Amino acid sequence: MRLSTGFVRASGYAHKVRRVLFAVTRGKVEPKEVVRAAGELNQRIFEKLRELGVEKSDVVRITVPFSIKEGTIEWDYDGLEIEVYRKSEEENLARAMEEVEERERELEERIKELEELVLNLRETSEQMLEKLEELKQEHTSLRLRAEE
Amino acid sequence: MRLSTGFVRASGYAHKVRRVLFAVTRGKVEPKEVVRAAGELNQRIFEKLRELGVEKSDVVRITVPFSIKEGTIEWDYDGLEIEVYRKSEEENLARAMEEVEERERELEERIKELEELVLNLRETSEQMLEKLEELKQEHTSLRLRAEE
Amino acid sequence: MRLSTGFVRASGYAHKVRRVLFAVTRGKVEPKEVVRAAGELNQRIFEKLRELGVEKSDVVRITVPFSIKEGTIEWDYDGLEIEVYRKSEEENLARAMEEVEERERELEERIKELEELVLNLRETSEQMLEKLEELKQEHTSLRLRAEE
Amino acid sequence: MRLSTGFVRASGYAHKVRRVLFAVTRGKVEPKEVVRAAGELNQRIFEKLRELGVEKSDVVRITVPFSIKEGTIEWDYDGLEIEVYRKSEEENLARAMEEVEERERELEERIKELEELVLNLRETSEQMLEKLEELKQEHTSLRLRAEE
Repeated sequence: MRLSTGFVRASGYAHKVRRVLFAVTRGKVEPKEVVRAAGELNQRIFEKLRELGVEKSDVVRITVPFSIKEGTIEWDYDGLEIEVYRKSEEENLARAMEEVEERERELEERIKELEELVLNLRETSEQMLEKLEELKQEHTSLRLRAEE
Repeated sequence: MRLSTGFVRASGYAHKVRRVLFAVTRGKVEPKEVVRAAGELNQRIFEKLRELGVEKSDVVRITVPFSIKEGTIEWDYDGLEIEVYRKSEEENLARAMEEVEERERELEERIKELEELVLNLRETSEQMLEKLEELKQEHTSLRLRAEE
Repeated sequence: MRLSTGFVRASGYAHKVRRVLFAVTRGKVEPKEVVRAAGELNQRIFEKLRELGVEKSDVVRITVPFSIKEGTIEWDYDGLEIEVYRKSEEENLARAMEEVEERERELEERIKELEELVLNLRETSEQMLEKLEELKQEHTSLRLRAEE
Repeated sequence: MRLSTGFVRASGYAHKVRRVLFAVTRGKVEPKEVVRAAGELNQRIFEKLRELGVEKSDVVRITVPFSIKEGTIEWDYDGLEIEVYRKSEEENLARAMEEVEERERELEERIKELEELVLNLRETSEQMLEKLEELKQEHTSLRLRAEE
Protein backbone atom coordinates (compact mmCIF):
# COMPACT_ATOMS: atom_id res chain seq x y z
CA MET A 1 0.00 0.00 0.00
CA ARG A 2 1.01 3.58 -0.46
CA LEU A 3 0.27 6.79 1.39
CA SER A 4 0.19 9.91 -0.74
CA THR A 5 -0.52 13.30 0.83
CA GLY A 6 -1.18 15.15 -2.37
CA PHE A 7 -0.19 18.81 -2.40
CA VAL A 8 -0.13 20.29 1.07
CA ARG A 9 1.31 23.35 2.74
CA ALA A 10 4.45 22.30 4.64
CA SER A 11 2.94 23.73 7.85
CA GLY A 12 0.16 21.18 7.65
CA TYR A 13 1.92 18.05 6.41
CA ALA A 14 1.56 16.19 9.73
CA HIS A 15 -2.22 16.56 9.88
CA LYS A 16 -2.53 15.65 6.23
CA VAL A 17 -0.50 12.48 6.72
CA ARG A 18 -2.76 11.41 9.55
CA ARG A 19 -6.00 12.17 7.71
CA VAL A 20 -4.95 10.34 4.59
CA LEU A 21 -3.69 7.40 6.64
CA PHE A 22 -7.07 7.17 8.40
CA ALA A 23 -8.82 7.16 5.02
CA VAL A 24 -6.66 4.48 3.36
CA THR A 25 -6.53 2.14 6.35
CA ARG A 26 -10.18 2.50 7.41
CA GLY A 27 -11.45 -0.86 8.63
CA LYS A 28 -8.03 -2.48 8.60
CA VAL A 29 -6.21 -0.87 11.49
CA GLU A 30 -7.23 0.40 14.93
CA PRO A 31 -7.42 4.20 15.32
CA LYS A 32 -4.74 4.12 18.02
CA GLU A 33 -2.35 2.43 15.62
CA VAL A 34 -3.10 5.00 12.92
CA VAL A 35 -2.26 7.78 15.37
CA ARG A 36 0.95 6.02 16.41
CA ALA A 37 2.09 5.22 12.88
CA ALA A 38 1.33 8.75 11.66
CA GLY A 39 3.32 10.15 14.57
CA GLU A 40 6.28 7.93 13.75
CA LEU A 41 6.26 8.84 10.06
CA ASN A 42 5.78 12.52 10.77
CA GLN A 43 8.88 12.56 12.96
CA ARG A 44 10.90 11.16 10.06
CA ILE A 45 9.38 13.63 7.59
CA PHE A 46 10.06 16.47 10.01
CA GLU A 47 13.78 15.71 9.94
CA LYS A 48 13.88 15.43 6.17
CA LEU A 49 12.06 18.76 5.73
CA ARG A 50 14.59 20.41 8.02
CA GLU A 51 17.46 18.95 6.02
CA LEU A 52 15.85 20.24 2.84
CA GLY A 53 15.39 23.68 4.36
CA VAL A 54 11.67 23.67 3.64
CA GLU A 55 9.70 26.70 4.90
CA LYS A 56 6.21 26.51 6.39
CA SER A 57 4.75 28.32 3.42
CA ASP A 58 6.32 26.02 0.84
CA VAL A 59 4.20 23.24 -0.58
CA VAL A 60 5.17 19.59 -0.35
CA ARG A 61 3.94 16.27 -1.65
CA ILE A 62 4.90 13.16 0.22
CA THR A 63 4.51 9.51 -0.75
CA VAL A 64 5.61 6.48 1.16
CA PRO A 65 4.92 2.77 0.78
CA PHE A 66 3.77 0.78 3.80
CA SER A 67 2.43 -2.59 4.74
CA ILE A 68 0.08 -3.78 7.49
CA LYS A 69 1.31 -6.72 9.56
CA GLU A 70 -0.96 -8.05 12.28
CA GLY A 71 -2.68 -4.73 12.69
CA THR A 72 0.55 -2.76 12.73
CA ILE A 73 1.60 -0.29 10.06
CA GLU A 74 5.17 -0.68 8.87
CA TRP A 75 6.66 2.14 6.86
CA ASP A 76 9.07 1.44 4.05
CA TYR A 77 11.28 4.46 4.66
CA ASP A 78 13.53 3.61 1.70
CA GLY A 79 10.59 4.40 -0.52
CA LEU A 80 9.85 7.78 1.12
CA GLU A 81 9.62 10.56 -1.45
CA ILE A 82 9.23 14.24 -0.72
CA GLU A 83 8.62 16.73 -3.51
CA VAL A 84 9.14 20.36 -2.56
CA TYR A 85 7.55 23.35 -4.31
CA ARG A 86 9.16 26.52 -3.02
CA LYS A 87 6.86 29.48 -2.54
CA SER A 88 9.35 31.67 -4.38
CA GLU A 89 8.90 29.53 -7.51
CA GLU A 90 5.27 28.39 -7.25
CA GLU A 91 3.64 31.40 -5.66
CA ASN A 92 0.09 30.70 -6.81
CA LEU A 93 0.25 27.13 -5.58
CA ALA A 94 1.57 28.30 -2.22
CA ARG A 95 -1.20 30.86 -1.86
CA ALA A 96 -3.87 28.39 -2.91
CA MET A 97 -2.70 25.88 -0.31
CA GLU A 98 -2.73 28.61 2.32
CA GLU A 99 -6.38 29.25 1.46
CA VAL A 100 -7.15 25.55 1.76
CA GLU A 101 -5.61 25.51 5.22
CA GLU A 102 -7.72 28.48 6.25
CA ARG A 103 -10.91 26.80 5.02
CA GLU A 104 -10.05 23.70 6.99
CA ARG A 105 -9.74 25.71 10.18
CA GLU A 106 -13.24 27.11 9.59
CA LEU A 107 -14.59 23.63 8.97
CA GLU A 108 -13.03 22.47 12.23
CA GLU A 109 -14.82 25.21 14.13
CA ARG A 110 -18.17 24.06 12.76
CA ILE A 111 -17.42 20.45 13.51
CA LYS A 112 -16.38 21.28 17.07
CA GLU A 113 -19.72 23.03 17.63
CA LEU A 114 -21.55 20.05 16.22
CA GLU A 115 -19.59 17.68 18.42
CA GLU A 116 -20.61 19.59 21.51
CA LEU A 117 -24.25 19.10 20.55
CA VAL A 118 -23.75 15.39 19.96
CA LEU A 119 -22.13 15.04 23.38
CA ASN A 120 -25.09 16.93 24.87
CA LEU A 121 -27.37 14.54 23.10
CA ARG A 122 -25.64 11.50 24.47
CA GLU A 123 -25.85 12.88 27.97
CA THR A 124 -29.54 13.65 27.56
CA SER A 125 -30.21 10.15 26.31
CA GLU A 126 -28.34 8.67 29.29
CA GLN A 127 -30.38 10.81 31.67
CA MET A 128 -33.56 9.65 29.99
CA LEU A 129 -32.64 6.02 30.43
CA GLU A 130 -31.93 6.76 34.08
CA LYS A 131 -35.26 8.51 34.63
CA LEU A 132 -37.11 5.79 32.79
CA GLU A 133 -35.43 3.15 34.92
CA GLU A 134 -36.58 4.93 38.07
CA LEU A 135 -40.06 5.17 36.67
CA LYS A 136 -40.00 1.46 35.92
CA GLN A 137 -38.63 0.63 39.36
CA GLU A 138 -41.29 2.52 41.26
CA HIS A 139 -44.32 2.27 39.02
CA THR A 140 -44.15 -0.90 36.94
CA SER A 141 -43.26 -4.55 37.06
CA LEU A 142 -41.22 -4.31 33.86
CA ARG A 143 -37.86 -6.00 33.67
CA LEU A 144 -35.16 -3.82 35.24
CA ARG A 145 -31.49 -3.41 34.45
CA ALA A 146 -30.71 -4.82 37.89
CA GLU A 147 -32.33 -8.07 36.76
CA GLU A 148 -30.22 -8.51 33.64
CA MET B 1 -37.30 1.77 58.57
CA ARG B 2 -40.56 0.26 57.54
CA LEU B 3 -41.97 -1.01 54.27
CA SER B 4 -45.71 -0.63 53.84
CA THR B 5 -47.42 -1.81 50.68
CA GLY B 6 -50.69 -0.06 51.24
CA PHE B 7 -53.77 -1.85 49.89
CA VAL B 8 -52.94 -4.14 47.02
CA ARG B 9 -54.57 -7.02 45.23
CA ALA B 10 -53.01 -10.26 46.45
CA SER B 11 -52.11 -11.16 42.84
CA GLY B 12 -49.82 -8.13 42.70
CA TYR B 13 -48.25 -8.03 46.15
CA ALA B 14 -44.78 -9.02 44.92
CA HIS B 15 -44.53 -6.18 42.41
CA LYS B 16 -45.90 -3.73 44.94
CA VAL B 17 -43.32 -4.76 47.52
CA ARG B 18 -40.55 -4.19 45.06
CA ARG B 19 -41.83 -0.80 43.86
CA VAL B 20 -42.30 0.52 47.36
CA LEU B 21 -38.90 -0.79 48.41
CA PHE B 22 -37.29 1.03 45.49
CA ALA B 23 -39.03 4.22 46.52
CA VAL B 24 -38.13 4.12 50.21
CA THR B 25 -34.50 3.04 49.72
CA ARG B 26 -33.74 5.32 46.75
CA GLY B 27 -30.16 6.56 47.05
CA LYS B 28 -29.30 4.28 49.95
CA VAL B 29 -29.13 0.84 48.37
CA GLU B 30 -28.02 -0.50 45.01
CA PRO B 31 -30.82 -1.58 42.63
CA LYS B 32 -29.49 -5.15 42.59
CA GLU B 33 -29.83 -5.33 46.36
CA VAL B 34 -33.39 -3.98 46.18
CA VAL B 35 -34.27 -6.70 43.71
CA ARG B 36 -32.64 -9.33 45.90
CA ALA B 37 -34.21 -8.18 49.15
CA ALA B 38 -37.66 -7.87 47.57
CA GLY B 39 -37.33 -11.38 46.22
CA GLU B 40 -36.37 -12.72 49.64
CA LEU B 41 -39.26 -10.98 51.39
CA ASN B 42 -41.73 -11.96 48.70
CA GLN B 43 -40.86 -15.62 49.17
CA ARG B 44 -41.71 -15.34 52.88
CA ILE B 45 -44.94 -13.45 52.16
CA PHE B 46 -45.89 -16.04 49.58
CA GLU B 47 -45.76 -18.79 52.19
CA LYS B 48 -47.77 -16.78 54.69
CA LEU B 49 -50.44 -15.99 52.11
CA ARG B 50 -50.74 -19.67 51.33
CA GLU B 51 -51.07 -20.52 55.00
CA LEU B 52 -53.76 -17.87 55.31
CA GLY B 53 -55.61 -19.25 52.28
CA VAL B 54 -55.56 -15.88 50.53
CA GLU B 55 -57.03 -15.78 47.01
CA LYS B 56 -55.60 -13.74 44.15
CA SER B 57 -58.59 -11.48 44.16
CA ASP B 58 -58.43 -10.74 47.88
CA VAL B 59 -56.80 -7.54 49.00
CA VAL B 60 -53.86 -7.44 51.38
CA ARG B 61 -51.82 -4.87 53.22
CA ILE B 62 -48.32 -5.78 54.29
CA THR B 63 -45.93 -3.98 56.60
CA VAL B 64 -42.50 -5.08 57.71
CA PRO B 65 -39.66 -3.32 59.49
CA PHE B 66 -36.18 -3.49 58.04
CA SER B 67 -32.74 -2.01 58.48
CA ILE B 68 -29.91 -1.29 56.07
CA LYS B 69 -26.49 -2.57 57.10
CA GLU B 70 -23.55 -1.84 54.82
CA GLY B 71 -25.77 -1.57 51.78
CA THR B 72 -27.71 -4.72 52.60
CA ILE B 73 -31.39 -4.79 53.51
CA GLU B 74 -32.19 -6.93 56.54
CA TRP B 75 -35.83 -7.81 57.14
CA ASP B 76 -37.19 -8.04 60.65
CA TYR B 77 -39.53 -10.95 59.97
CA ASP B 78 -40.84 -10.95 63.54
CA GLY B 79 -42.45 -7.61 62.77
CA LEU B 80 -44.09 -8.78 59.53
CA GLU B 81 -47.80 -8.00 59.48
CA ILE B 82 -50.29 -9.06 56.84
CA GLU B 83 -53.84 -7.76 56.86
CA VAL B 84 -56.24 -9.64 54.63
CA TYR B 85 -59.48 -8.24 53.18
CA ARG B 86 -61.46 -11.09 51.64
CA LYS B 87 -63.26 -10.30 48.44
CA SER B 88 -66.39 -11.90 49.84
CA GLU B 89 -66.44 -9.29 52.61
CA GLU B 90 -64.96 -6.21 50.95
CA GLU B 91 -66.21 -6.55 47.44
CA ASN B 92 -65.92 -2.92 46.42
CA LEU B 93 -62.36 -2.73 47.67
CA ALA B 94 -61.49 -5.90 45.77
CA ARG B 95 -62.99 -4.58 42.56
CA ALA B 96 -61.32 -1.21 42.96
CA MET B 97 -57.92 -2.85 43.40
CA GLU B 98 -58.56 -4.96 40.34
CA GLU B 99 -59.13 -1.77 38.35
CA VAL B 100 -55.90 -0.30 39.69
CA GLU B 101 -54.04 -3.38 38.51
CA GLU B 102 -55.57 -3.04 35.06
CA ARG B 103 -54.54 0.63 34.82
CA GLU B 104 -51.00 -0.29 35.77
CA ARG B 105 -50.79 -2.78 32.96
CA GLU B 106 -51.84 -0.06 30.50
CA LEU B 107 -49.25 2.30 31.95
CA GLU B 108 -46.61 -0.37 31.50
CA GLU B 109 -47.48 -0.71 27.85
CA ARG B 110 -46.95 3.02 27.30
CA ILE B 111 -43.71 2.99 29.21
CA LYS B 112 -42.42 0.04 27.23
CA GLU B 113 -43.10 1.93 24.00
CA LEU B 114 -41.32 4.96 25.36
CA GLU B 115 -38.37 2.87 26.42
CA GLU B 116 -37.95 1.50 22.93
CA LEU B 117 -37.72 5.05 21.62
CA VAL B 118 -35.15 6.00 24.25
CA LEU B 119 -33.05 2.97 23.31
CA ASN B 120 -33.34 4.03 19.66
CA LEU B 121 -32.19 7.45 20.66
CA ARG B 122 -29.16 6.17 22.45
CA GLU B 123 -28.19 4.09 19.47
CA THR B 124 -28.61 7.06 17.12
CA SER B 125 -26.45 9.20 19.36
CA GLU B 126 -23.75 6.54 19.44
CA GLN B 127 -23.83 6.31 15.65
CA MET B 128 -23.51 10.08 15.42
CA LEU B 129 -20.45 10.11 17.64
CA GLU B 130 -18.99 7.39 15.46
CA LYS B 131 -19.67 9.29 12.22
CA LEU B 132 -18.37 12.49 13.71
CA GLU B 133 -15.20 10.74 14.80
CA GLU B 134 -14.64 9.49 11.26
CA LEU B 135 -15.24 12.98 9.96
CA LYS B 136 -12.70 14.34 12.42
CA GLN B 137 -10.19 11.61 11.57
CA GLU B 138 -10.27 12.23 7.84
CA HIS B 139 -11.02 15.93 7.57
CA THR B 140 -9.71 17.76 10.62
CA SER B 141 -6.81 17.98 13.02
CA LEU B 142 -9.13 17.99 16.04
CA ARG B 143 -8.30 15.83 19.03
CA LEU B 144 -9.44 12.24 18.47
CA ARG B 145 -10.67 9.62 20.90
CA ALA B 146 -7.61 7.53 20.00
CA GLU B 147 -5.46 10.30 21.46
CA GLU B 148 -7.16 10.41 24.83
CA MET C 1 -70.30 4.30 23.64
CA ARG C 2 -69.94 4.55 27.36
CA LEU C 3 -67.54 6.28 29.70
CA SER C 4 -66.96 4.57 33.01
CA THR C 5 -64.58 6.03 35.58
CA GLY C 6 -64.34 2.98 37.76
CA PHE C 7 -63.83 3.66 41.45
CA VAL C 8 -62.23 7.01 42.10
CA ARG C 9 -61.80 9.36 45.01
CA ALA C 10 -64.30 12.22 44.63
CA SER C 11 -61.43 14.74 44.78
CA GLY C 12 -60.04 13.29 41.57
CA TYR C 13 -63.14 12.53 39.52
CA ALA C 14 -62.47 15.29 36.96
CA HIS C 15 -59.00 14.06 36.06
CA LYS C 16 -60.23 10.48 35.93
CA VAL C 17 -63.05 11.42 33.54
CA ARG C 18 -60.57 13.08 31.23
CA ARG C 19 -58.04 10.24 31.30
CA VAL C 20 -60.63 7.60 30.61
CA LEU C 21 -62.18 9.71 27.86
CA PHE C 22 -58.79 10.04 26.19
CA ALA C 23 -58.34 6.28 26.35
CA VAL C 24 -61.74 5.31 24.94
CA THR C 25 -61.78 7.93 22.15
CA ARG C 26 -58.13 7.55 21.09
CA GLY C 27 -57.91 7.91 17.33
CA LYS C 28 -61.51 9.02 16.90
CA VAL C 29 -61.58 12.51 18.36
CA GLU C 30 -59.12 15.41 18.46
CA PRO C 31 -57.39 16.04 21.82
CA LYS C 32 -58.88 19.53 22.01
CA GLU C 33 -62.37 18.06 21.74
CA VAL C 34 -61.60 15.52 24.47
CA VAL C 35 -60.52 18.33 26.75
CA ARG C 36 -63.64 20.33 25.93
CA ALA C 37 -66.06 17.45 26.34
CA ALA C 38 -64.45 16.34 29.60
CA GLY C 39 -64.75 19.90 30.89
CA GLU C 40 -68.41 20.05 29.96
CA LEU C 41 -69.24 16.72 31.61
CA ASN C 42 -67.19 17.52 34.68
CA GLN C 43 -69.18 20.70 35.24
CA ARG C 44 -72.39 18.65 35.24
CA ILE C 45 -70.94 16.03 37.57
CA PHE C 46 -69.67 18.73 39.88
CA GLU C 47 -73.21 20.01 40.37
CA LYS C 48 -74.60 16.54 40.98
CA LEU C 49 -71.91 15.75 43.54
CA ARG C 50 -72.78 18.96 45.39
CA GLU C 51 -76.45 18.07 45.39
CA LEU C 52 -75.57 14.65 46.75
CA GLY C 53 -73.39 16.17 49.47
CA VAL C 54 -70.39 14.13 48.39
CA GLU C 55 -67.15 14.81 50.30
CA LYS C 56 -63.70 14.85 48.69
CA SER C 57 -62.69 11.74 50.55
CA ASP C 58 -65.75 9.73 49.49
CA VAL C 59 -65.41 7.39 46.56
CA VAL C 60 -67.56 7.63 43.44
CA ARG C 61 -68.11 5.67 40.27
CA ILE C 62 -69.53 7.49 37.28
CA THR C 63 -70.87 6.12 34.03
CA VAL C 64 -72.38 8.04 31.16
CA PRO C 65 -73.28 7.10 27.59
CA PHE C 66 -72.05 9.28 24.73
CA SER C 67 -71.85 9.37 20.98
CA ILE C 68 -69.40 10.92 18.54
CA LYS C 69 -70.92 13.02 15.75
CA GLU C 70 -68.58 14.56 13.22
CA GLY C 71 -65.71 14.59 15.65
CA THR C 72 -67.77 16.01 18.49
CA ILE C 73 -68.57 14.16 21.68
CA GLU C 74 -72.23 14.37 22.72
CA TRP C 75 -73.10 13.31 26.26
CA ASP C 76 -76.34 11.56 26.98
CA TYR C 77 -76.97 13.22 30.33
CA ASP C 78 -80.16 11.27 30.89
CA GLY C 79 -78.04 8.15 31.19
CA LEU C 80 -75.58 9.70 33.70
CA GLU C 81 -75.18 7.50 36.77
CA ILE C 82 -73.22 8.35 39.89
CA GLU C 83 -72.65 5.75 42.60
CA VAL C 84 -71.42 7.15 45.91
CA TYR C 85 -69.47 5.20 48.55
CA ARG C 86 -69.26 7.29 51.73
CA LYS C 87 -65.99 7.13 53.59
CA SER C 88 -67.92 6.54 56.80
CA GLU C 89 -69.33 3.31 55.37
CA GLU C 90 -66.53 2.09 53.13
CA GLU C 91 -63.48 3.20 55.00
CA ASN C 92 -61.01 0.74 53.50
CA LEU C 93 -62.11 1.61 49.99
CA ALA C 94 -61.73 5.32 50.75
CA ARG C 95 -58.25 4.84 52.16
CA ALA C 96 -57.21 2.65 49.26
CA MET C 97 -58.35 5.28 46.75
CA GLU C 98 -56.45 7.92 48.66
CA GLU C 99 -53.31 5.83 48.29
CA VAL C 100 -53.93 5.50 44.58
CA GLU C 101 -54.17 9.25 44.28
CA GLU C 102 -50.89 9.68 46.12
CA ARG C 103 -49.14 7.19 43.82
CA GLU C 104 -50.42 9.07 40.80
CA ARG C 105 -48.91 12.28 42.07
CA GLU C 106 -45.54 10.57 42.38
CA LEU C 107 -45.88 9.19 38.87
CA GLU C 108 -46.63 12.68 37.59
CA GLU C 109 -43.44 14.01 39.12
CA ARG C 110 -41.40 11.37 37.29
CA ILE C 111 -43.18 12.05 34.03
CA LYS C 112 -42.63 15.78 34.33
CA GLU C 113 -38.91 15.20 34.77
CA LEU C 114 -38.88 12.94 31.75
CA GLU C 115 -40.78 15.51 29.70
CA GLU C 116 -38.19 18.14 30.44
CA LEU C 117 -35.51 15.84 29.05
CA VAL C 118 -37.54 15.15 25.92
CA LEU C 119 -38.00 18.88 25.35
CA ASN C 120 -34.23 19.31 25.82
CA LEU C 121 -33.70 16.60 23.28
CA ARG C 122 -35.95 18.24 20.73
CA GLU C 123 -34.10 21.51 21.14
CA THR C 124 -30.73 19.80 20.77
CA SER C 125 -31.90 18.09 17.61
CA GLU C 126 -33.12 21.40 16.16
CA GLN C 127 -29.77 23.01 16.97
CA MET C 128 -27.99 20.15 15.26
CA LEU C 129 -30.01 20.56 12.11
CA GLU C 130 -29.20 24.27 12.20
CA LYS C 131 -25.46 23.68 12.64
CA LEU C 132 -25.46 21.03 9.96
CA GLU C 133 -27.23 23.38 7.58
CA GLU C 134 -24.56 26.03 8.16
CA LEU C 135 -21.89 23.43 7.58
CA LYS C 136 -23.58 22.45 4.34
CA GLN C 137 -23.97 26.05 3.26
CA GLU C 138 -20.34 26.98 3.74
CA HIS C 139 -18.52 23.74 3.05
CA THR C 140 -20.51 21.62 0.62
CA SER C 141 -22.60 21.74 -2.50
CA LEU C 142 -25.31 19.57 -0.92
CA ARG C 143 -28.95 20.51 -1.36
CA LEU C 144 -29.97 23.18 1.16
CA ARG C 145 -33.27 23.85 2.88
CA ALA C 146 -33.38 27.22 1.06
CA GLU C 147 -33.55 25.27 -2.19
CA GLU C 148 -36.51 23.14 -1.25
CA MET D 1 -18.58 44.41 0.59
CA ARG D 2 -16.61 42.05 -1.59
CA LEU D 3 -16.92 38.42 -2.52
CA SER D 4 -13.65 36.66 -3.27
CA THR D 5 -13.61 33.00 -4.24
CA GLY D 6 -9.91 32.45 -3.79
CA PHE D 7 -8.35 29.90 -6.10
CA VAL D 8 -10.84 27.36 -7.35
CA ARG D 9 -11.04 24.82 -10.11
CA ALA D 10 -13.25 26.27 -12.89
CA SER D 11 -15.52 23.21 -12.63
CA GLY D 12 -16.43 24.19 -9.10
CA TYR D 13 -16.65 27.97 -9.26
CA ALA D 14 -20.45 28.04 -8.80
CA HIS D 15 -20.41 26.07 -5.54
CA LYS D 16 -17.48 28.10 -4.27
CA VAL D 17 -19.30 31.38 -4.97
CA ARG D 18 -22.27 30.18 -2.99
CA ARG D 19 -20.27 28.88 -0.04
CA VAL D 20 -18.25 32.06 0.27
CA LEU D 21 -21.38 34.19 -0.09
CA PHE D 22 -23.04 32.26 2.75
CA ALA D 23 -19.99 32.83 4.93
CA VAL D 24 -19.62 36.58 4.30
CA THR D 25 -23.35 37.40 4.56
CA ARG D 26 -24.09 35.13 7.57
CA GLY D 27 -26.63 36.86 9.80
CA LYS D 28 -27.35 39.65 7.32
CA VAL D 29 -29.31 37.96 4.53
CA GLU D 30 -31.85 35.15 4.37
CA PRO D 31 -30.57 31.81 3.00
CA LYS D 32 -33.08 31.95 0.15
CA GLU D 33 -31.63 35.29 -0.96
CA VAL D 34 -28.09 33.92 -0.80
CA VAL D 35 -29.12 31.07 -3.06
CA ARG D 36 -30.84 33.47 -5.46
CA ALA D 37 -28.00 35.99 -5.59
CA ALA D 38 -25.39 33.25 -6.03
CA GLY D 39 -27.43 31.85 -8.89
CA GLU D 40 -27.66 35.24 -10.56
CA LEU D 41 -23.93 35.93 -10.26
CA ASN D 42 -23.00 32.43 -11.36
CA GLN D 43 -24.96 32.87 -14.55
CA ARG D 44 -22.97 35.99 -15.35
CA ILE D 45 -19.67 34.28 -14.49
CA PHE D 46 -20.62 31.31 -16.63
CA GLU D 47 -20.92 33.55 -19.69
CA LYS D 48 -17.64 35.28 -18.99
CA LEU D 49 -15.82 31.98 -18.57
CA ARG D 50 -17.18 30.81 -21.91
CA GLU D 51 -16.03 34.02 -23.58
CA LEU D 52 -12.60 33.52 -22.06
CA GLY D 53 -12.48 29.91 -23.26
CA VAL D 54 -11.84 28.60 -19.78
CA GLU D 55 -11.64 24.82 -19.39
CA LYS D 56 -13.05 22.89 -16.41
CA SER D 57 -9.58 21.96 -15.28
CA ASP D 58 -8.25 25.52 -15.35
CA VAL D 59 -8.14 27.43 -12.11
CA VAL D 60 -9.89 30.76 -11.62
CA ARG D 61 -10.13 33.42 -8.97
CA ILE D 62 -13.15 35.66 -8.95
CA THR D 63 -13.82 38.84 -7.02
CA VAL D 64 -16.88 41.03 -7.20
CA PRO D 65 -18.13 43.92 -5.05
CA PHE D 66 -21.70 43.88 -3.78
CA SER D 67 -24.00 45.69 -1.41
CA ILE D 68 -26.96 44.58 0.68
CA LYS D 69 -30.11 46.71 0.35
CA GLU D 70 -33.11 45.75 2.45
CA GLY D 71 -32.05 42.15 2.65
CA THR D 72 -31.27 41.90 -1.05
CA ILE D 73 -27.80 41.37 -2.49
CA GLU D 74 -26.91 43.68 -5.36
CA TRP D 75 -23.91 42.77 -7.46
CA ASP D 76 -21.66 45.49 -8.86
CA TYR D 77 -20.96 43.74 -12.14
CA ASP D 78 -18.66 46.53 -13.31
CA GLY D 79 -16.27 45.51 -10.58
CA LEU D 80 -16.34 41.80 -11.50
CA GLU D 81 -12.80 40.45 -11.93
CA ILE D 82 -11.89 36.98 -13.13
CA GLU D 83 -8.29 35.79 -13.07
CA VAL D 84 -7.61 32.66 -15.10
CA TYR D 85 -4.74 30.23 -14.52
CA ARG D 86 -4.55 27.79 -17.43
CA LYS D 87 -3.71 24.23 -16.58
CA SER D 88 -1.13 24.24 -19.35
CA GLU D 89 0.78 27.00 -17.57
CA GLU D 90 0.09 26.27 -13.89
CA GLU D 91 -0.05 22.52 -13.85
CA ASN D 92 0.73 22.02 -10.18
CA LEU D 93 -1.90 24.54 -9.16
CA ALA D 94 -4.46 22.82 -11.39
CA ARG D 95 -3.67 19.42 -9.94
CA ALA D 96 -3.76 20.72 -6.39
CA MET D 97 -7.19 22.24 -6.94
CA GLU D 98 -8.39 18.98 -8.43
CA GLU D 99 -7.34 17.24 -5.24
CA VAL D 100 -9.17 19.81 -3.15
CA GLU D 101 -12.33 19.14 -5.15
CA GLU D 102 -11.95 15.41 -4.56
CA ARG D 103 -11.54 15.91 -0.79
CA GLU D 104 -14.68 18.03 -0.72
CA ARG D 105 -16.67 15.27 -2.34
CA GLU D 106 -15.54 12.87 0.37
CA LEU D 107 -16.45 15.38 3.05
CA GLU D 108 -19.90 15.72 1.52
CA GLU D 109 -20.45 11.98 1.75
CA ARG D 110 -19.65 12.02 5.47
CA ILE D 111 -21.90 15.01 6.06
CA LYS D 112 -24.77 13.39 4.18
CA GLU D 113 -24.50 10.33 6.42
CA LEU D 114 -24.47 12.53 9.48
CA GLU D 115 -27.50 14.44 8.25
CA GLU D 116 -29.48 11.24 7.91
CA LEU D 117 -28.78 10.46 11.55
CA VAL D 118 -29.82 13.94 12.64
CA LEU D 119 -33.09 13.59 10.73
CA ASN D 120 -33.60 10.21 12.44
CA LEU D 121 -32.97 11.88 15.74
CA ARG D 122 -35.55 14.57 15.10
CA GLU D 123 -38.11 11.99 14.19
CA THR D 124 -37.36 9.97 17.30
CA SER D 125 -37.72 13.03 19.47
CA GLU D 126 -41.06 13.88 17.86
CA GLN D 127 -42.28 10.33 18.47
CA MET D 128 -41.20 10.58 22.09
CA LEU D 129 -43.14 13.78 22.60
CA GLU D 130 -46.14 12.08 21.06
CA LYS D 131 -45.86 9.01 23.30
CA LEU D 132 -45.31 11.17 26.35
CA GLU D 133 -48.37 13.22 25.50
CA GLU D 134 -50.47 10.05 25.30
CA LEU D 135 -49.04 8.91 28.61
CA LYS D 136 -49.93 12.28 30.14
CA GLN D 137 -53.41 12.20 28.62
CA GLU D 138 -54.30 8.77 29.97
CA HIS D 139 -52.33 8.57 33.19
CA THR D 140 -51.80 12.05 34.62
CA SER D 141 -53.48 15.37 35.24
CA LEU D 142 -50.50 17.27 33.83
CA ARG D 143 -51.08 20.16 31.46
CA LEU D 144 -51.61 18.91 27.91
CA ARG D 145 -50.75 20.42 24.56
CA ALA D 146 -54.49 20.60 23.81
CA GLU D 147 -54.82 23.00 26.74
CA GLU D 148 -52.19 25.46 25.56
